[in-house]
Amino acid sequence: MAKYSFKNDYSEGAHPRILEALSKTNLAQEAGYGEDSYCTKAAALIKKRLKNPKADIHFLSGGTQANLIVISSILKPYESVIAADTGHIAVHEAGAIEATGHKINTVPSKDGKLAVKDIKGVVDFHSDEHMVKPGMVFISNSTEIGTVYKKKELKAISEFCTKNKLYLYLDGARLASALTSKSNDMTLQEISSLVDTFYIGGTKNGALLGEAIVINNDCLKENFRFHLKQKGALLAKGRVIGIQFMELFKDELYFDLGTRANKMAEKLAKNIKAAGYKFLTRPQSNQIFPIFPNKMIERLNKKFEFYVWCKIDERSSAIRLVTSWATDERSVDRFIGEVSKHS
Amino acid sequence: MAKYSFKNDYSEGAHPRILEALSKTNLAQEAGYGEDSYCTKAAALIKKRLKNPKADIHFLSGGTQANLIVISSILKPYESVIAADTGHIAVHEAGAIEATGHKINTVPSKDGKLAVKDIKGVVDFHSDEHMVKPGMVFISNSTEIGTVYKKKELKAISEFCTKNKLYLYLDGARLASALTSKSNDMTLQEISSLVDTFYIGGTKNGALLGEAIVINNDCLKENFRFHLKQKGALLAKGRVIGIQFMELFKDELYFDLGTRANKMAEKLAKNIKAAGYKFLTRPQSNQIFPIFPNKMIERLNKKFEFYVWCKIDERSSAIRLVTSWATDERSVDRFIGEVSKHS
Amino acid sequence: MAKYSFKNDYSEGAHPRILEALSKTNLAQEAGYGEDSYCTKAAALIKKRLKNPKADIHFLSGGTQANLIVISSILKPYESVIAADTGHIAVHEAGAIEATGHKINTVPSKDGKLAVKDIKGVVDFHSDEHMVKPGMVFISNSTEIGTVYKKKELKAISEFCTKNKLYLYLDGARLASALTSKSNDMTLQEISSLVDTFYIGGTKNGALLGEAIVINNDCLKENFRFHLKQKGALLAKGRVIGIQFMELFKDELYFDLGTRANKMAEKLAKNIKAAGYKFLTRPQSNQIFPIFPNKMIERLNKKFEFYVWCKIDERSSAIRLVTSWATDERSVDRFIGEVSKHS
Amino acid sequence: MAKYSFKNDYSEGAHPRILEALSKTNLAQEAGYGEDSYCTKAAALIKKRLKNPKADIHFLSGGTQANLIVISSILKPYESVIAADTGHIAVHEAGAIEATGHKINTVPSKDGKLAVKDIKGVVDFHSDEHMVKPGMVFISNSTEIGTVYKKKELKAISEFCTKNKLYLYLDGARLASALTSKSNDMTLQEISSLVDTFYIGGTKNGALLGEAIVINNDCLKENFRFHLKQKGALLAKGRVIGIQFMELFKDELYFDLGTRANKMAEKLAKNIKAAGYKFLTRPQSNQIFPIFPNKMIERLNKKFEFYVWCKIDERSSAIRLVTSWATDERSVDRFIGEVSKHS
Repeated sequence: MAKYSFKNDYSEGAHPRILEALSKTNLAQEAGYGEDSYCTKAAALIKKRLKNPKADIHFLSGGTQANLIVISSILKPYESVIAADTGHIAVHEAGAIEATGHKINTVPSKDGKLAVKDIKGVVDFHSDEHMVKPGMVFISNSTEIGTVYKKKELKAISEFCTKNKLYLYLDGARLASALTSKSNDMTLQEISSLVDTFYIGGTKNGALLGEAIVINNDCLKENFRFHLKQKGALLAKGRVIGIQFMELFKDELYFDLGTRANKMAEKLAKNIKAAGYKFLTRPQSNQIFPIFPNKMIERLNKKFEFYVWCKIDERSSAIRLVTSWATDERSVDRFIGEVSKHS
Repeated sequence: MAKYSFKNDYSEGAHPRILEALSKTNLAQEAGYGEDSYCTKAAALIKKRLKNPKADIHFLSGGTQANLIVISSILKPYESVIAADTGHIAVHEAGAIEATGHKINTVPSKDGKLAVKDIKGVVDFHSDEHMVKPGMVFISNSTEIGTVYKKKELKAISEFCTKNKLYLYLDGARLASALTSKSNDMTLQEISSLVDTFYIGGTKNGALLGEAIVINNDCLKENFRFHLKQKGALLAKGRVIGIQFMELFKDELYFDLGTRANKMAEKLAKNIKAAGYKFLTRPQSNQIFPIFPNKMIERLNKKFEFYVWCKIDERSSAIRLVTSWATDERSVDRFIGEVSKHS
Repeated sequence: MAKYSFKNDYSEGAHPRILEALSKTNLAQEAGYGEDSYCTKAAALIKKRLKNPKADIHFLSGGTQANLIVISSILKPYESVIAADTGHIAVHEAGAIEATGHKINTVPSKDGKLAVKDIKGVVDFHSDEHMVKPGMVFISNSTEIGTVYKKKELKAISEFCTKNKLYLYLDGARLASALTSKSNDMTLQEISSLVDTFYIGGTKNGALLGEAIVINNDCLKENFRFHLKQKGALLAKGRVIGIQFMELFKDELYFDLGTRANKMAEKLAKNIKAAGYKFLTRPQSNQIFPIFPNKMIERLNKKFEFYVWCKIDERSSAIRLVTSWATDERSVDRFIGEVSKHS
Repeated sequence: MAKYSFKNDYSEGAHPRILEALSKTNLAQEAGYGEDSYCTKAAALIKKRLKNPKADIHFLSGGTQANLIVISSILKPYESVIAADTGHIAVHEAGAIEATGHKINTVPSKDGKLAVKDIKGVVDFHSDEHMVKPGMVFISNSTEIGTVYKKKELKAISEFCTKNKLYLYLDGARLASALTSKSNDMTLQEISSLVDTFYIGGTKNGALLGEAIVINNDCLKENFRFHLKQKGALLAKGRVIGIQFMELFKDELYFDLGTRANKMAEKLAKNIKAAGYKFLTRPQSNQIFPIFPNKMIERLNKKFEFYVWCKIDERSSAIRLVTSWATDERSVDRFIGEVSKHS
């Protein structure tokens, strides 16, 4: 790859400490299917940080898999899940949720977030057995377009859900970036306490692969491993994910990697703004969406890889830049230089 | 773990060369979702070995996942899959196939294999639209009880399937052990040429995790990546599997690891036989099933871990011993010693 | 049709009183989707007869539909249903249950019935999350091969299910014939009290079409109409089924029609036996399975239609004869005459 | 029911000729599951009218059932169906389509119709395997809000679908009203020739119950009865639907009933307009949506039943009035009188 890529936060392998941990434990004999001592320890570390010793923790290989298993494990056949129309499950999972039998009720969202009034609108609309029955709410933090929930917002959603018997599920593929965002005003523990279940993303924050599903609500815990097995998510060498989460949560590594990703995005955003450009959504996490003239985009594209997100008008488009723990700062500087030079 | 485990072939991590390969490539930027250069190279190596440049190769994380995706991608809603009643999909996948909407027509099997007459029986029984319509055949090699198909047997099945418009799929979770078994009379290329699609197991033969689906039949290739994505099998860092298969197939590593596993099983089998014991099925691969008096089993169990497979009579049971590339030969010798001492 | 048919109990239309009832109510305006006054009245009549005012009653168009909706409404995604291998859901519903995502654990059965030991065997075999979890038991009364459960048998199954947290569901496609069989020792109310849910078959006992699902267990009642709607079973003119069940249960019509069907079968069975022939299963209801020499079958087949059920030996086979409320007694006599003449 | 109902077109039973036909054929013995002579004759009559002797015709009990079976029989697991957001499958089928595993891509529609640009927008948006792949288009004629497609419109959609390898399916629950609408410029044959498959609605046009699926495209014909059986749609007494369609299509009855329904709706519309009121959509078929002041709605509601469809502003709402072959003209006149009196 000649061009430096800001396409996503999974272009590289794992943080070196992760690989070391895998090497160090490699020849120890362990039980299969997530019943090894590493998974147990990793779960204990996460539960401690959540201050929820009763939480159930399950490790699996990817985000779409986590979403489809959690959602299909919660909903009755006739129930649906409410999501923003920008939500990963609504657009970018090839119909994974519907393939388990459930409709997604989407709500148009400009900033990638759901608000209580959006959810209420869907609930009010669904009145009888000729329609699906909304059974849960899906949100992402950070969202698919880089925004971060405020405590006040998440609390309001959480309370509405409790009152209306809707389960609340949070997709934390980029939770590390959300938690270490300057816009964030919640701890991991606080977020956890406001949702029934969520997952902590590893793949996009330093792991080779892996996500950790956290189930807080007792009603959702029973026989969850059957769901994992049935959907092909119970890895024979479950240890592979356990070891990584053990490493990420035995100290502050998980948060340090998020901070590092955000720092690179902030540097990009600050300088792009200084050069006179606007953004599709306010830069808050490791995904930012600057709006550039198409000519600038062409020029940048000769040296860098990134997605053109959407057309703004005839002359300009928003692009997506994603940073990670592995982002090369000199490449960030080169990108900034390229933008400034031609502005 | 104080006791040495013969429980399975996924008790340890990966072969050291695999970890090295992951480390060496770690910081290179690559495309996501299996479109990286490692997956491309690994696929090329496999295709070369199969002498089938037109084969489609897809990498994913586990065997149940491979089975459910391949099977559900092939069958029409009303079609079923024929399998031995010992087949992994029939017993040990928590209903994963049925969860995709398809019935498994099982046939009683003593040695874990299917024969043409078994398949014919199922086909003949299903006569009209009040019943499912068998659409494919599932076999495993080596089987779930350690046996290995002969070329003659596989060829007969393959011909019957072609004549009867049944797709033939082979679960190769333990294909390395089958191919390097003394009972085996087929090359990887020959096996591949006799089936429509199969998977080459990595998890149980040296990989950290990962399997490689091979699609030979053109009719089954179209849009397969949609199936992978929809079932949560398209890993963001697909490179992780690609790198491993590149390493396994760039020389004879894949086969060497199978040979090593078989050698340990042979040593166990030969000495157990010499000590006067019989077997549930003839030892052929890295899973063997000696029959011991229950007292002997108790005694062995104080020093070793293994599964008690089934009761033979009031006084004796068959146990399952599994070896792998990582099996410690001294532990094999200790096991043999224990058996011989008390016989 | 020149030949008289003993193929099934749905060769004719409806009992004349059913058609009259439909005509009489035809132009009254009623609410749609089963919320009409006829469905309400029919439900009340059935509940009264069951002495269970709290039962939920739902009307729908057919038996496969009833089975797939009830079963999929009860089971969690990873749960299975236990059935005899002769069970309708196992063989003759084109994979309808699996299409809703669930495995059927079948048990070989010679007389079409399940016994406690069969169910226990399945439950004991399923030990962990690598396998499905049996969640309910399916039985038919009368069974698919004409046998009828004794109170003692049903009670034993019911108690085992309760102890083992298995829901018990009874397919009553031919419940009228079972209840009016000379082998029967239970009332409709008694049967109902021993199962969580069942359906009362109308199609095969005088209705134009229609079955009545009865839900006794409170846990299974919630939102059942959503399941009906989602599976396409909520008829716009639900009244059509309600009117028919109102007619069948406003007096003894439902039972009289069963009695009439059985009487014809008994006449056939008695005379076939007198002519020296044996039966596959003991004649008990409106389906009987005499064993004839193949030559006799050929001869009978020139004048009558029926299914050849299974081969007994090189020279003889069992055939299925089905009678109904509409069976023409002269044709019964002609059949007997034909059998006797050549014996 | 004291109030006269304009709630829907399935408040009454069947047209008297339908009941007569059922009575007349009642005791004839016929084959089960749609293989009777009535279904065969009804299919022949329909095929003749479509001038398509190769069409496949299947009869079943209801519209949601028809939609879920046709759509799930056509789509591959990763494919979606495009529909207007007012489409029956999108809103009023309790997630029946998603329950078979498929996403519905909805497009906002003001008049209930889809236009080529709507379909093109969905197709263009779906670019890769991270998203579903649109595989077919669903339209209704007349639509769920009473509008009727013009030949030019349907032809444009049909051509776009052919070019873009999308199957086109038409929900004809109210096809009789569409075909006999003054706005209509197509024959049944012409509509049929422009779609791959559609269904002719019986329930809402004089039948006791029943719809006729027509499959024109050869690719969609194979093994369709398996789909019917698996979804519980193959009625044991399939004759019940066959007889009704035989009666509806042996002369002009099907069209006469549609004409009669439209005539009543026209009379309502014309007089409501004359009284100074507007409509949500232009009255074209047997469903009309006048906009009344809320006070008028309250007044009308004392004497008539109807659905309040949607709020227009603080003072007024649109209501839905539905007429049918059975609509009582005096009640129409009373309704008009009530409206005129207070205007």
